[in-house]
Amino acid sequence: MRFVIIGGNAAGMSAASKSKRNDPAIEVIVLEKTTDVSYLVSGLSYNMADAYREINDLIVRSVNVFRDKQKIDVRLGHTAERFDPKNRNVKGRISDGRDFEIAYDKLLIATGARARMLPIPGIDLPGVVTLRSLGDGRRLKQLMSCKFAKRALIVGAGYIGLEMADAFYRRDINVEMYDIEARLLPWMPPEMANIVQIEMENRGVKFHFGTKLLNIARSNHELHATFDSGTVRADILLIAVGILPNSEIATQAGLALGAGGAISVDSTMRTSDPHIYAAGDCADMIHVVTGQKVWIPLGLIANRGGWAVANNVTGRRTQVPGIVGTTVFETFDIEVTRTGLSPVEARMVGFDAVETRIRSRSRAHGYPGSHEIYVSLVADRASGRLLGGTIVGREGAAHRINALAAALHAKMGVREFVQCDMAYAPPFGPVWDPLLIAANQLQKEL
Amino acid sequence: MRFVIIGGNAAGMSAASKSKRNDPAIEVIVLEKTTDVSYLVSGLSYNMADAYREINDLIVRSVNVFRDKQKIDVRLGHTAERFDPKNRNVKGRISDGRDFEIAYDKLLIATGARARMLPIPGIDLPGVVTLRSLGDGRRLKQLMSCKFAKRALIVGAGYIGLEMADAFYRRDINVEMYDIEARLLPWMPPEMANIVQIEMENRGVKFHFGTKLLNIARSNHELHATFDSGTVRADILLIAVGILPNSEIATQAGLALGAGGAISVDSTMRTSDPHIYAAGDCADMIHVVTGQKVWIPLGLIANRGGWAVANNVTGRRTQVPGIVGTTVFETFDIEVTRTGLSPVEARMVGFDAVETRIRSRSRAHGYPGSHEIYVSLVADRASGRLLGGTIVGREGAAHRINALAAALHAKMGVREFVQCDMAYAPPFGPVWDPLLIAANQLQKEL
Repeated sequence: MRFVIIGGNAAGMSAASKSKRNDPAIEVIVLEKTTDVSYLVSGLSYNMADAYREINDLIVRSVNVFRDKQKIDVRLGHTAERFDPKNRNVKGRISDGRDFEIAYDKLLIATGARARMLPIPGIDLPGVVTLRSLGDGRRLKQLMSCKFAKRALIVGAGYIGLEMADAFYRRDINVEMYDIEARLLPWMPPEMANIVQIEMENRGVKFHFGTKLLNIARSNHELHATFDSGTVRADILLIAVGILPNSEIATQAGLALGAGGAISVDSTMRTSDPHIYAAGDCADMIHVVTGQKVWIPLGLIANRGGWAVANNVTGRRTQVPGIVGTTVFETFDIEVTRTGLSPVEARMVGFDAVETRIRSRSRAHGYPGSHEIYVSLVADRASGRLLGGTIVGREGAAHRINALAAALHAKMGVREFVQCDMAYAPPFGPVWDPLLIAANQLQKEL
Repeated sequence: MRFVIIGGNAAGMSAASKSKRNDPAIEVIVLEKTTDVSYLVSGLSYNMADAYREINDLIVRSVNVFRDKQKIDVRLGHTAERFDPKNRNVKGRISDGRDFEIAYDKLLIATGARARMLPIPGIDLPGVVTLRSLGDGRRLKQLMSCKFAKRALIVGAGYIGLEMADAFYRRDINVEMYDIEARLLPWMPPEMANIVQIEMENRGVKFHFGTKLLNIARSNHELHATFDSGTVRADILLIAVGILPNSEIATQAGLALGAGGAISVDSTMRTSDPHIYAAGDCADMIHVVTGQKVWIPLGLIANRGGWAVANNVTGRRTQVPGIVGTTVFETFDIEVTRTGLSPVEARMVGFDAVETRIRSRSRAHGYPGSHEIYVSLVADRASGRLLGGTIVGREGAAHRINALAAALHAKMGVREFVQCDMAYAPPFGPVWDPLLIAANQLQKEL
């Protein structure tokens, strides 16, 4: 049996490796349009922060290991352009200009997502960059290492924008951030977003909210970015206004799309065609809390989806029950993490969302080196069920969220969650873990 | 109504405060035999490590706040000696030599636990210490600050022993550890216990296993501790061979004892007498994983138990479903944490325990500053249910265990747990969280 995979990153290479481990007799062909496979997309901005770190550190496994040790036929520079579900073949173009056509028994679309671009004049000018692929990373790191790079503008204050603000700061490049929203991280309670913003401002980052980029020009090796608020000059302009699923190839072939324009899959990661799967950042997923389809592209989910596809292709039926949307990032030494639904998201799907916010400490009463830690917790008034939460702090936020994520998967109520027996020792938190303090307060408000 | 509480620490003062918050009209009398209330027992050893930290930093709330702001009648130096369940009164002795007798409507026994002593000659000599109360802490800290304190022996390599080894080390006091067991932390897989032991040995701590302390003598301001392996001299000898519940006062009054010689309580924290409750380190609890009574004294549980008693005394019926035994400590910069059952404990209660052990990293592939992190995970072969786990590492162990603790409370199977959507970003772990790596491997072995 021939298993063809379009896209050689998290979902694609996980599926390739696991299908070969499950069944060494299977023929696995990976079509990757770039020259890079199996690297950490989420590591790109952190890598940018360190001039001495090789960008190739982000590569988890080299193409040769996949080819020689795992006997996976990885074809680099192969851009799949279309596939024919009826005749089961994929057609495309090789980087040397030749065309290719490959038949498949099972197909996995793991084309990932791309940076969203702004349809404005000058968006293609040198010095205007996005950060999504290893290639993007190479270009940006080179720009950052140029001694004339003194001033960066970031358009979009999402995860990548905030992580890159940190990276520019660490590389001694002045940063200004522009966002079309009225405030930072609008899904987060304002006082929690302020923790991040104030820390960044204290280190010299300037924020401009409610601003829209209109056009970019370049003269004398300088970019001139014109916002509705005026024109600013810069050496680097990072566009970080979100990502879009690479689902066009599926649309062309008549496959159904789902949430967020991503490819619709069932719990076995199968598309509307029984021989075609999709996984990773190009596919949608069930949200465990709402039961509805969502598009929340995440590295772990891509890996898990790839594994599930490999199992299903090799006859070990596997279902992925869904996601709760757990994310974390770090910027300016602050950990920002969330899982499940924000109050607004919860209300949009019909929950009577109750939210509580607490401030606690990262270490026990009197223990040196303690920092503030902020928790927001959301539950449904009618059922008492936990719906989501957010934690922000200088330490102890990142891993703490996973207890809440597990609780969401288990569909726990606040009443059950407050009874969880969590680890306590003075270096790691107060007697009542900040999550429990929040849950106790939330229970009172329900 | 008069609510009398014997013991003014975690369980006792939590119950006192909450019952007053629930019902300001209730009369609350706390009988505390020492002069200290409401301090962090778990913080004692960490406090010892720092000569410049006040021991009183461990006091969470002063007795005056309880008295003046919360209108709780806290009586220090009041040793309750016996109570009469029939006539509902408590008798005892005040530190000034007078006797007292107090009637109650509801009684809470929150007498805590005491350090277990060894019945050997010389155990009462100056320089031979335990560490359980704030008074113990004051004495030990004074000893450690003496310029002649150069050499400490620790008998018992449990949590307190290991934390204190760290404290002695930080105070430039030479440490040797003696334990009757054949190896360090016998409930933990040997390769994980070795992480701790090797780090400690590298910093100069000497271990002597399978040794028993026979007697202690003192001459020329020096202690001479005779073990079955020979005599060793020391300036400080810390006895850290576990703790015992202070349940004698309950036994005398005819109340039923439960697990570990602690006072038996139901899920409302009520003893065998309908007007008498017990909570904290003197009471037993239901273990959520086994459904059986256990005695695992923990700070959070004491607080939670105290709250539940307060609610039940003031007419808000509250149940404590039980504990999973989550603990964490830090020694020599290594975080050691566990929850649920070890394989041996699981087999003792009839589970067909399967254990898996994995080694992973605390940060993503290629991310600087990463350390090894070790996870052991236990499940029941028949049902696939998670039973417990242990995590050891230089970072990322302490808070990570809580996701597993929540999963144990939710009675999750390994199959469900591997599907949990955990936070991933390169500074905080690999794409597959170490807990998930372990769970994936465990699932294969089931």
